Amino acid sequence: MKAVQVIGYHTKLQLNEIPEPTVQGPLDVIVKIGGAGVCRTDLHVLEGQWEAKTGVELPYTIGHENAGWVHATGDAVTNVADGDKVIVHPLITCGLCRACRFGDDVHCENSQFPGIDVHGGYAQYLLTSARSVVKIDPGLEPADVAALADAGLTAYHAAAKAAGATRPGDVCVMIGAGGLGHIGIQVMKAISAVTLVVVDRNQAALDLAREIGADVTILADGHQVEKVLELTGGHGAEAVVDFVGEGGATAQGIAMLRRAGNYYVVGYGENIDVPTIDVISTEINFIGNLVGSYNDLQELMVLAARGSVKLHTTKYALEDFQQALDDLDNGLVRGRAILVP
Amino acid sequence: MKAVQVIGYHTKLQLNEIPEPTVQGPLDVIVKIGGAGVCRTDLHVLEGQWEAKTGVELPYTIGHENAGWVHATGDAVTNVADGDKVIVHPLITCGLCRACRFGDDVHCENSQFPGIDVHGGYAQYLLTSARSVVKIDPGLEPADVAALADAGLTAYHAAAKAAGATRPGDVCVMIGAGGLGHIGIQVMKAISAVTLVVVDRNQAALDLAREIGADVTILADGHQVEKVLELTGGHGAEAVVDFVGEGGATAQGIAMLRRAGNYYVVGYGENIDVPTIDVISTEINFIGNLVGSYNDLQELMVLAARGSVKLHTTKYALEDFQQALDDLDNGLVRGRAILVP
Amino acid sequence: MKAVQVIGYHTKLQLNEIPEPTVQGPLDVIVKIGGAGVCRTDLHVLEGQWEAKTGVELPYTIGHENAGWVHATGDAVTNVADGDKVIVHPLITCGLCRACRFGDDVHCENSQFPGIDVHGGYAQYLLTSARSVVKIDPGLEPADVAALADAGLTAYHAAAKAAGATRPGDVCVMIGAGGLGHIGIQVMKAISAVTLVVVDRNQAALDLAREIGADVTILADGHQVEKVLELTGGHGAEAVVDFVGEGGATAQGIAMLRRAGNYYVVGYGENIDVPTIDVISTEINFIGNLVGSYNDLQELMVLAARGSVKLHTTKYALEDFQQALDDLDNGLVRGRAILVP
Amino acid sequence: MKAVQVIGYHTKLQLNEIPEPTVQGPLDVIVKIGGAGVCRTDLHVLEGQWEAKTGVELPYTIGHENAGWVHATGDAVTNVADGDKVIVHPLITCGLCRACRFGDDVHCENSQFPGIDVHGGYAQYLLTSARSVVKIDPGLEPADVAALADAGLTAYHAAAKAAGATRPGDVCVMIGAGGLGHIGIQVMKAISAVTLVVVDRNQAALDLAREIGADVTILADGHQVEKVLELTGGHGAEAVVDFVGEGGATAQGIAMLRRAGNYYVVGYGENIDVPTIDVISTEINFIGNLVGSYNDLQELMVLAARGSVKLHTTKYALEDFQQALDDLDNGLVRGRAILVP
Repeated sequence: MKAVQVIGYHTKLQLNEIPEPTVQGPLDVIVKIGGAGVCRTDLHVLEGQWEAKTGVELPYTIGHENAGWVHATGDAVTNVADGDKVIVHPLITCGLCRACRFGDDVHCENSQFPGIDVHGGYAQYLLTSARSVVKIDPGLEPADVAALADAGLTAYHAAAKAAGATRPGDVCVMIGAGGLGHIGIQVMKAISAVTLVVVDRNQAALDLAREIGADVTILADGHQVEKVLELTGGHGAEAVVDFVGEGGATAQGIAMLRRAGNYYVVGYGENIDVPTIDVISTEINFIGNLVGSYNDLQELMVLAARGSVKLHTTKYALEDFQQALDDLDNGLVRGRAILVP
Repeated sequence: MKAVQVIGYHTKLQLNEIPEPTVQGPLDVIVKIGGAGVCRTDLHVLEGQWEAKTGVELPYTIGHENAGWVHATGDAVTNVADGDKVIVHPLITCGLCRACRFGDDVHCENSQFPGIDVHGGYAQYLLTSARSVVKIDPGLEPADVAALADAGLTAYHAAAKAAGATRPGDVCVMIGAGGLGHIGIQVMKAISAVTLVVVDRNQAALDLAREIGADVTILADGHQVEKVLELTGGHGAEAVVDFVGEGGATAQGIAMLRRAGNYYVVGYGENIDVPTIDVISTEINFIGNLVGSYNDLQELMVLAARGSVKLHTTKYALEDFQQALDDLDNGLVRGRAILVP
Repeated sequence: MKAVQVIGYHTKLQLNEIPEPTVQGPLDVIVKIGGAGVCRTDLHVLEGQWEAKTGVELPYTIGHENAGWVHATGDAVTNVADGDKVIVHPLITCGLCRACRFGDDVHCENSQFPGIDVHGGYAQYLLTSARSVVKIDPGLEPADVAALADAGLTAYHAAAKAAGATRPGDVCVMIGAGGLGHIGIQVMKAISAVTLVVVDRNQAALDLAREIGADVTILADGHQVEKVLELTGGHGAEAVVDFVGEGGATAQGIAMLRRAGNYYVVGYGENIDVPTIDVISTEINFIGNLVGSYNDLQELMVLAARGSVKLHTTKYALEDFQQALDDLDNGLVRGRAILVP
Repeated sequence: MKAVQVIGYHTKLQLNEIPEPTVQGPLDVIVKIGGAGVCRTDLHVLEGQWEAKTGVELPYTIGHENAGWVHATGDAVTNVADGDKVIVHPLITCGLCRACRFGDDVHCENSQFPGIDVHGGYAQYLLTSARSVVKIDPGLEPADVAALADAGLTAYHAAAKAAGATRPGDVCVMIGAGGLGHIGIQVMKAISAVTLVVVDRNQAALDLAREIGADVTILADGHQVEKVLELTGGHGAEAVVDFVGEGGATAQGIAMLRRAGNYYVVGYGENIDVPTIDVISTEINFIGNLVGSYNDLQELMVLAARGSVKLHTTKYALEDFQQALDDLDNGLVRGRAILVP
């Protein structure tokens, strides 16, 4: 089959002909790829940022946001059958450790991450597990939802936490209306009645935010903290979901937070650097967020099937992978780039 | 009546004769002081650390950890009667703002803090509110429990949060077995079945920690992080309750934390300075803690009445206030110093 | 002032001229009534159903769903000012008992219930408390929201509990699309992404349910249980909110419930009569619901201000109270009847 | 191997020589039985009470409370190794359905129940799954803990729920200090600071309850409701855990419950028959309880390893199974009867 592979760091990906994966274990599932999301992390892989961390043997197939159709299954697979349309949870988890037994998949003690540390989905077929495939509604197309598998799932997970800890009329600020924020906004509006305030440096992103559900949009022009405080009677927001995490976003975000508020860390880059006296005198919390569980992905697919969460995508043939990466790198992709084999 | 007052910053407290407080408002309660805790914050007040923050008019009576007997009550007071033994919640709260209506007293939008911004309890009588007095068990003496009003309440509040988020067999590390830690240990053992690990620089404090419930004690000799990791199979602890918050405690404490773990900030001094990528890749949380609610104080008094939480105290006559403060400043107080009028 | 009063049981209400209430206590609030909801409970009061329970002295003013403008306030009132538009929480609570201190107003140990055990709102002015008045959005009119004070609050409280215990895609069945159900549907859609199934005997009520947010409507024609099971792959619904509670609704509702599901009891009349073996073998729960808290009412007013929750009302002059009660008794009121002084 | 089997209903069990189970699937685990608990359910199986429900083919091996040593494992088993001491969770679960993915094992849509619908543990070896074996502390012996696998787990699960919904000083009534209650008492004392009140008809059971942690014991002599009310100032208990569920226990238990209280249904036999108006006017809840999860069993084993939960057992050789059942039927077993192969 065709597969786009990492053949070295600081060099370009290569389209190779490699053997199709086959079912080896009882819970193995082979997915015929319908779409694979092109993600900024893929660029970072090529830059070698994950090299030491994973020690993955080259060449290997990249791509960690995958959806398609079940092509073959191991003996013990009972939850999907050949032909089922599925989206693929980014991790392959063991199901036996205490974290897995709590449903807390991302903290599995024995997980694999296809596209990062084993073969991924820039290919015609992907080997994954029965524990990773979520059936999707017949009305959804794999290539349309593939990018929800990781970026979308992360945004869902964080927004669902924030929704669970707020009440109608509470103010939730989302910092960053880009890829993840775009999903986060739609999720938050679908599952809660907070007043949703979106902050971004880009007016076009704010216009889109407004269309998809933001109640208030604020341009990050240096006055965003005071605007949030003004909007909240000087008290600040009950929740801040930070999809940026760099360029000063955290210091500004913390300044927007109300006493006893929750700060959801999603984007990353800079440090949180906050005096402990500020943490205790206001009793604020910082909440980490990492991808989401299998059940989270099922729930996100419910929202997608209803049209509550939509994703704009630009599709490329698998062979045009280089164009897709270049476009992404040059900021030319509208929505998410998807490779279609 | 006699009252020990702040007459200026960077100068000594003074024993003055001032009028007894009287009931003015319908929810006012006058408490005859049975004991007032001497706290490090009192030293900080004298150093002027709170001057700009509170703008309290001098002279004023200091003392924010109070217990005694109800002496007089306003017309609308229904929860206590003259002669009742009570401990005094450190804040006077409005009862009408949204935080108060949730039972979240410390975030009251209109609170007063006797001993800090209005007259406190280094005196024969204290003016407080029906909303601040908690009846205590007949078997308890005000002078024995006074120091639980603030320091104890803070430790209870943090330990109860940690207990609620852990399961039997989870590992909870408490950093610091001093005043607050000492209470935190007893509370944690009374309400949970975690494995409780206590870290301190002082072997004597660890010995006491062991006596009152610590399952494991670790001397903070520079190897404490590796010892916690060793103890937890390399995974770290599900919860870290940090009663220190300075001198490098936070960096070490974070390194002791398991994926998806909670870091409870109680002590303060230094900054939390942590890369956002570490927060999200391990999905850890930082949880602020500030005093506790009125109901928390009721619950702590239940534990005290049962003997589950005990406090060692050294009593001084009110007139000997200077000796008490000097002893505290010089590290000569065993347990907590209490002024008894 | 004019007040419609109970002068005896099994006899008609009477319009009397009585003195205006005046501020006596520090937290007293006098509300100039803008609208008072006419509720089936008012008919039951006249039938004597509450006589023994309350022992209220006759004559007294009836009416427990009230909204209007603040007319006068006691000395200690800080949360509202004269002229503020307010809706009135049905209970006057003490603010001092442990339930109040948890924000659990309806379990206050010392509450009064205007319109039931003290003077209510079928009048020009009502005496209530600072603890009971919730400011409403300038865009809302008291007469339009008055009926949300009790019926609406009850529906909100139950729906919010159900929303908090379900996930997107879970199925929630609401039994009864009448007064409360009508609010419950709108609330549920505003704060959650469940699949909302509404069951009622009346096709017109189902048509309205569909308009205001029901995803599926099922006529209660004797086949409603099998239809819910069919819709849920034989598993049943994660949540059933029962606004009926009589005529066999509970047995049918329990049969619609999924393993580990929650049954919210709101309507009443018949017994829940269920074998304990069925409760344990499916591990289902029955959740009682009683009115809602002050903060719940604030949140409902947020939804009302946004137009997420709307109520159809038919207004009557206060003097036409008898017509309003007759119309209610004869099923001639569309939406809720409101008396306007 | 030797196995005690059901060869027909209403007839005695028979000791048969049958083939040892062997590993077939990748997650299969064969456990060498160290002890198998003899449970009242085993008597009910023989009486045919489960015949229609399970349709199990005869003969089959009975016994659903098992512990021992891992004897052989399938290819995909990573959590245990040969020789490990284990206790066996009563269900074999699929790990793939939504309930399993939440860690809610007992609601697995595809579970098996060894000893009830497939071969159980009255034998030398048992076939189970990697998903069902929990490693136990080296200091524990399988025959000593076997009866915790089902009865103990059920008590743990219910007590942990009650502990999570109460606060220090709240009153928890446990009805029934027999097999399950005995464990429930110990668990509750290990993980919470409620005031624990135990009600039983048998004074000897109450004496034991007192020894193992009950704060108050009340003989069920017809005055138990009034005694609980007296003890709680007329308010009733925040939680009632009912291990009996028959003979009028539920009506009495409900009468002991405080407003907003939770009634935990564990024992079964009679109906809960309660007016909906009582449910809503007091806002009480009924909480079903069914066995417990895999993680619950891990936590119970932590308590057992610490000696916080102890079980008195009477051991019988496997061949003496009839004696064990007869003794159980005749009330002659002290603690739990355990068959040791």
